[in-house]
Amino acid sequence: MAAIDRGRVLAKVRALVFDVFGTVVDWRGSILKELEALGRAKGIAADWARFVDDWRGGYHPAMQLVRSGALPWTNIDGLHRRILDVILVQHGIAGLTEDEKRHLNLVWHRLDPWPDAVAGLVRLKPRYIVGTLSNGNVALLVDMAKHAGLPWDVVLSAELVRHYKPDPEAYQMAPSLLGLAPHEVMMVAAHASDLAAAATQGLRTAYVSRPLERGPGSRAEAVSSDDVDVVAGDFLELAARLGP
Amino acid sequence: MAAIDRGRVLAKVRALVFDVFGTVVDWRGSILKELEALGRAKGIAADWARFVDDWRGGYHPAMQLVRSGALPWTNIDGLHRRILDVILVQHGIAGLTEDEKRHLNLVWHRLDPWPDAVAGLVRLKPRYIVGTLSNGNVALLVDMAKHAGLPWDVVLSAELVRHYKPDPEAYQMAPSLLGLAPHEVMMVAAHASDLAAAATQGLRTAYVSRPLERGPGSRAEAVSSDDVDVVAGDFLELAARLGP
Repeated sequence: MAAIDRGRVLAKVRALVFDVFGTVVDWRGSILKELEALGRAKGIAADWARFVDDWRGGYHPAMQLVRSGALPWTNIDGLHRRILDVILVQHGIAGLTEDEKRHLNLVWHRLDPWPDAVAGLVRLKPRYIVGTLSNGNVALLVDMAKHAGLPWDVVLSAELVRHYKPDPEAYQMAPSLLGLAPHEVMMVAAHASDLAAAATQGLRTAYVSRPLERGPGSRAEAVSSDDVDVVAGDFLELAARLGP
Repeated sequence: MAAIDRGRVLAKVRALVFDVFGTVVDWRGSILKELEALGRAKGIAADWARFVDDWRGGYHPAMQLVRSGALPWTNIDGLHRRILDVILVQHGIAGLTEDEKRHLNLVWHRLDPWPDAVAGLVRLKPRYIVGTLSNGNVALLVDMAKHAGLPWDVVLSAELVRHYKPDPEAYQMAPSLLGLAPHEVMMVAAHASDLAAAATQGLRTAYVSRPLERGPGSRAEAVSSDDVDVVAGDFLELAARLGP
């Protein structure tokens, strides 16, 4: 897209809606830290890095069960708990009480933001409506925002329409509830598939690279400015690219 | 209720959800100011005070049409526009273009807060989840929050469940989406009927008096601490009553 056309496209954007897990918060690092502390406190030895990767690894298959109709609507807290119960057994971890399991499951409400996330959102908030557009449930997203200081104007969740991304309904919710045209809403994510699905519903797209999402030695997805409307290295660069 | 029981009840509250029109914002004063400016700019003479009262007066009957099923789901922007079109004719006001009518209808997105509202919410926000629980649609509530500086953690709207207050579904949404028990959620409103309906769903209740809601010379509803869990004169007193 020529620079002048791109400028015209961006000038119409009024709301930025953010993918959350991986894009705003460091789920892997946050959970690993808490699991390691739990292991020390309870005297449990385990491969906690594999544990957290298995937990996240169960997420897409579980959502797929809901998306296909094989499982009735279940929010992410419920899906996380289903997966947790399985992987606790797989990793041979016993000795957690029901209260401890319940508390552990809510670690997804206590994730820490990437270092630039809060500062970037604070910079974007005077110019745009900033909100989530996440598969996380509302309680999770609200608790996380309180924990991490994320200054959302609105919390949009798959739970509100009972359709997980990448179902079209999840993306359509943003312009519909915000009273905007699809091209006035920009999806921000660190995942090409999320952005591609948003674009099919007419949303604008911004890719932010998060090379550390899957831990040290992982790498960012390969996305270029041919694929999306904006490419940025972090939220501060995103704010700069979207103009003064 | 004995003071010690009341203290125990309040200690469990984790989220405060606010009625908005009249409780957080001064709809009558805000709209009157804008209508008078419009009248001067367009050279239109009218009884603007009666006009705004008629506009608000059409609100409950219009919602009742939706609640009864006589009208399919229509959000508040849509209901406000239906009423506006009728009262423009009734008040003999012609000469507004479609764009001007559309802009005027969105005056409900630009309402000013009562003088204590922002300061009170800022004081409550570190201790509680603070959110709306309003019949206003999401776009209206988000735009209003940007306009007025209302620091909501979450925007809950009748639009999300397509049930207007006082339908039970509207109140049930708050604990359900926040992952809390009903008694962990407190409804804050300047209207006894709203609080009574919230209480039937198990929510805690706080009454804040807004004697000027219906203009100079109007008076607050008569609500005592026998009727609700907390009575306060404004949001700062509410914050003080809920403890340190």
